[in-house]
Amino acid sequence: MPVGLGPLPVLHPVRGFRLGIASAGIKRAGRKDVVVMQAAPGSVIAGVFTRNAFCAAPVTLCRQRLAHAPQYLLVNTGNANAGTGKPGMQAALRTCEALAELTGVQAEQVLPFSTGVIGEILPADKIIAVLPQALADLDENHWAVAAEGIMTTDTLPKGCSRQVSIGGAQVTVTGISKGAGMIRPNMATMLGYVATDAKIAQPLLQQMLRTAADLSFNRITIDGDTSTNDSCMLIATGQADMLEITEHDSAEYRQLAEAVNTVMLELAQAIVRDGEGATKFVTIRVNGGATQGECLDVAYAVAHSPLIKTALFASDPNWGRILAAVGYAGVENLDVEKIDVYLDDVCITRHGGRAEEYTEEQGARVMAQAEISIRIELNRGRVSETLWTTDLSHEYVRINAEYRT
Amino acid sequence: MPVGLGPLPVLHPVRGFRLGIASAGIKRAGRKDVVVMQAAPGSVIAGVFTRNAFCAAPVTLCRQRLAHAPQYLLVNTGNANAGTGKPGMQAALRTCEALAELTGVQAEQVLPFSTGVIGEILPADKIIAVLPQALADLDENHWAVAAEGIMTTDTLPKGCSRQVSIGGAQVTVTGISKGAGMIRPNMATMLGYVATDAKIAQPLLQQMLRTAADLSFNRITIDGDTSTNDSCMLIATGQADMLEITEHDSAEYRQLAEAVNTVMLELAQAIVRDGEGATKFVTIRVNGGATQGECLDVAYAVAHSPLIKTALFASDPNWGRILAAVGYAGVENLDVEKIDVYLDDVCITRHGGRAEEYTEEQGARVMAQAEISIRIELNRGRVSETLWTTDLSHEYVRINAEYRT
Repeated sequence: MPVGLGPLPVLHPVRGFRLGIASAGIKRAGRKDVVVMQAAPGSVIAGVFTRNAFCAAPVTLCRQRLAHAPQYLLVNTGNANAGTGKPGMQAALRTCEALAELTGVQAEQVLPFSTGVIGEILPADKIIAVLPQALADLDENHWAVAAEGIMTTDTLPKGCSRQVSIGGAQVTVTGISKGAGMIRPNMATMLGYVATDAKIAQPLLQQMLRTAADLSFNRITIDGDTSTNDSCMLIATGQADMLEITEHDSAEYRQLAEAVNTVMLELAQAIVRDGEGATKFVTIRVNGGATQGECLDVAYAVAHSPLIKTALFASDPNWGRILAAVGYAGVENLDVEKIDVYLDDVCITRHGGRAEEYTEEQGARVMAQAEISIRIELNRGRVSETLWTTDLSHEYVRINAEYRT
Repeated sequence: MPVGLGPLPVLHPVRGFRLGIASAGIKRAGRKDVVVMQAAPGSVIAGVFTRNAFCAAPVTLCRQRLAHAPQYLLVNTGNANAGTGKPGMQAALRTCEALAELTGVQAEQVLPFSTGVIGEILPADKIIAVLPQALADLDENHWAVAAEGIMTTDTLPKGCSRQVSIGGAQVTVTGISKGAGMIRPNMATMLGYVATDAKIAQPLLQQMLRTAADLSFNRITIDGDTSTNDSCMLIATGQADMLEITEHDSAEYRQLAEAVNTVMLELAQAIVRDGEGATKFVTIRVNGGATQGECLDVAYAVAHSPLIKTALFASDPNWGRILAAVGYAGVENLDVEKIDVYLDDVCITRHGGRAEEYTEEQGARVMAQAEISIRIELNRGRVSETLWTTDLSHEYVRINAEYRT
């Protein structure tokens, strides 16, 4: 059961950005498994991709093509086209070429995305056969159906939309996302697509996306596994009635960045809320670090500890496990006597030991909540970092153990 | 159910090393929870300890006292005396002083070890009260009962013994161990005690222990959590009829080292075999790395991936998850097309993709075994590393979620 995730909110259309879906029967007949997105000519596109050395063929193509004024995004579920070598690359190329031919663009202007089973060649013919259907379906109002079309084992579609006023013009930022990293069985993937009608130079859009991803998609973790296919795209169609944003330190840049950050954070958190077997939504905040790196090391050590994750599942305020994870995070010259730890507003550890006023009941009250924050005060500097994660439940083991059986 | 772990083998006595147990009722009345070990005067002692910054009070004391010709080791289960601040340190000091008084040694010559619940002050009085009982029980033949006396949630006692001929003298190496790192609920701890009657200079003994630990206790992992109390001790009583080993490059050093390595590896592997909820014993071998560091990064990425661990539990030859873990291990400039992966003797991945001749049946046959090896050939250098680990089962989640309820 997703934690605090409801039906899709209203997803405002973005002028100049259309979405269409089709059913190619890649894994199951009748399932909507192909999504085509079209960015009107004049759009600019930014992307960030998995750091996994074993990246899938479509990721390799996306990286190469980002500079070639892409106009179409072609997404399929049911097959990740990863670990498939040259035949996999050929299959990806063929689907792009087919879409290019149908639409009159260059093949380099089509970006492919695949998610699903690894190690099987992409059934290019099945996808190519339904491209006309997907193109006929293109519509600015199809965000919600596209959010469903990119789902794999997600239990709910994920979307978010904001409208802001920038320089007197109304600007829309709308996005959808799916399946958290490798928490999904068999390497299903984290995908995010966010579009805006704002007018902005491509290098600035790329910078905005990188910052937003570092505050959202790069700050969530369920099990520490990084997929071969993770991709997050930010598209700006430029059709809003505004001057182009060309300066990083302008008020307009900041206004747009704030909306993009908000949308991407909500999309990323939705992935955690719908995490495999998740029963808790956990915010891990590390304050007072000397460097960003050490704050992240501590936060990830806590987020990835199976002992802490099972304690969260059991609603057990086992502060010893949290201290131990901080202790082995590898922070240089860590003075454990300076460390305070809070569960929400309850101080459980002060100066590296159990807080005197702390009672097990206070901890149990916080742990019983579906949404919990763990705050670690290192008291050795001024840097902070925040991650979001889930617990480790019986259901996680069941899903991942039984997926292919 | 432990994987491939039977009853204790014969544990040969070590001349000059005696063990005695007692029941202090620390956590449960009647349970054997205190073990005293005595090394005869003239013995030398080496130790390696947890790298967790939150190390427990007894670990701090052991580190300080290693140079003070220790003669007694005092172990308690049921309470880790970790995260207990100054009162915890006082309690540890008091138990050592009491044992020193009873035996006529300096308090600095007593090394304390604690394992069990974290965050509660050690009940020093209960321990002190039974020290006479433990001392009266001291006997060279009490290895097996001591192996049971240091157990926490281990399901079986762990011990190993070897006898070798060094320079014409028969030399014995015998050891016991308990509870793997933080796989055990609530920070129970990995403890290992190995004694030999060999005659060897202390700096050489320390060097021998460090090497042996790096090949054994430092190469096992169940869940990546490092306890606050992990300790491994190597004691040499010098009572064998031999000349003292004083040279690192001597044949005698190598002969003794080989026996010590064997005993420690078996003790470490026993901990994995008895890992929490373990249904598989998994050897992860990384060959052809450029550096030891990158081999370990790859091996740990595979060993800690919850997706691989659940696939192991399910006996699912999910090679995509293995490739993905290798891909995100952070190896610089990794050429994925050079990578081969084997399950036992079955090549599942060649040149970074599914091996052509590989069939799912071959993989399933290996995965159905209780003991599995995963071999990763990086083909970029000449360094190798090996780790041992377990799967991630329903039972692991149950044990760790329900421990304190």
